[in-house]
Amino acid sequence: MKLYGFWRSLATYRVKVALALKGIRVDEVSIDLLKGKQHEQDYLKVNPQAVVPALVLDEGGPPLFQSMAILEYLEETKPQPPLLPKDPRGRARVRGLALIGVADGHPLVVPRIRSFLEKEFQLSEEKRNQWLAHWTLKSLEAMESHLKNEKETGRYAHGDTVTLADICLAGQCVAATAYFKADVAGVPTVMRIYNECMKLDAFKDAHPMHQPGAQAH
Amino acid sequence: MKLYGFWRSLATYRVKVALALKGIRVDEVSIDLLKGKQHEQDYLKVNPQAVVPALVLDEGGPPLFQSMAILEYLEETKPQPPLLPKDPRGRARVRGLALIGVADGHPLVVPRIRSFLEKEFQLSEEKRNQWLAHWTLKSLEAMESHLKNEKETGRYAHGDTVTLADICLAGQCVAATAYFKADVAGVPTVMRIYNECMKLDAFKDAHPMHQPGAQAH
Repeated sequence: MKLYGFWRSLATYRVKVALALKGIRVDEVSIDLLKGKQHEQDYLKVNPQAVVPALVLDEGGPPLFQSMAILEYLEETKPQPPLLPKDPRGRARVRGLALIGVADGHPLVVPRIRSFLEKEFQLSEEKRNQWLAHWTLKSLEAMESHLKNEKETGRYAHGDTVTLADICLAGQCVAATAYFKADVAGVPTVMRIYNECMKLDAFKDAHPMHQPGAQAH
Repeated sequence: MKLYGFWRSLATYRVKVALALKGIRVDEVSIDLLKGKQHEQDYLKVNPQAVVPALVLDEGGPPLFQSMAILEYLEETKPQPPLLPKDPRGRARVRGLALIGVADGHPLVVPRIRSFLEKEFQLSEEKRNQWLAHWTLKSLEAMESHLKNEKETGRYAHGDTVTLADICLAGQCVAATAYFKADVAGVPTVMRIYNECMKLDAFKDAHPMHQPGAQAH
């Protein structure tokens, strides 16, 4: 498999963690989002939406797109170790928590949004940073509102084994702590789980700030 | 089952279409997002994130949250008629297309974002409308970039039967046409599929502008 991604991309991070947990090796191709390489013709042939990640399967054919769809594909085709519980209700909870990151928090801080706020709305860097920290924290608060009260919460977001919820939680925590310096004092359950995740190589090794691209930047 | 939603909510729309397609009857409870009812204590007990929809199951227990997680739950517990193809790769494509709506387009136009742009950033109504139309159209263009070229596209987004991709596409098309008056001339494949969907009662009857709340508004 070949994974098109970028060191700073949280959606790439999610896929890399899942690949590592499932023991799947991929070749990585870096698409430099800071230089706008996602808009170049060569990459548009890989993903016409001009976003990362995109996963090319060994069998060929159109690359897979959208991180959550890729995570579900990996779960269906390489079920061990499972990243979703077996019961439909538990699966709904895990997906719901994951989607708070994927579909509420993360879409607000991606490069195209930051660029629009700067260029179309002429907002200052201070205001843009306020936006980025605010919505990242809001997603963590939304996760916290579930995790702190629900009996399914364990060592991780859902029981004592890692699920897709933890992967997406960790991505938002990377954004909050490493990128946007949000005040995470109000989300202690989220941070406890994030710290648990970071004890695992799959989460730690894929951390954006541990990638070669981050050190070169 | 009991569905907490709102006539104008695109996420509620998605769930209502799926319920109708699967022949599941639910009691509906309206949470008036325009009046801020989602922030009241009674509703926070249902969904602490203060968003709709939330689905209460007959067996009780915590409500399900996040529309895409609810759609997956319905698919797992009432598989007929199927809203995902059988093959993992097809499922990944359908989920990917669906998530362009759920995780890229829709999160940018929800009430909390509109409120932030108005109150925190003091952006004019004109600029806010520009934002809403722009990002809704961008999501449709992203879908179009796949649909127009890929051989899996049929009468609907993936072959000739309705899938979750059509449901999420239709939601974004409702936003583009009924809410934000986006210029959809550049997304002909998307609009062709939307028009196919609207021939079906499940899509038509759930259309936000056909709800009692819309007429009262």
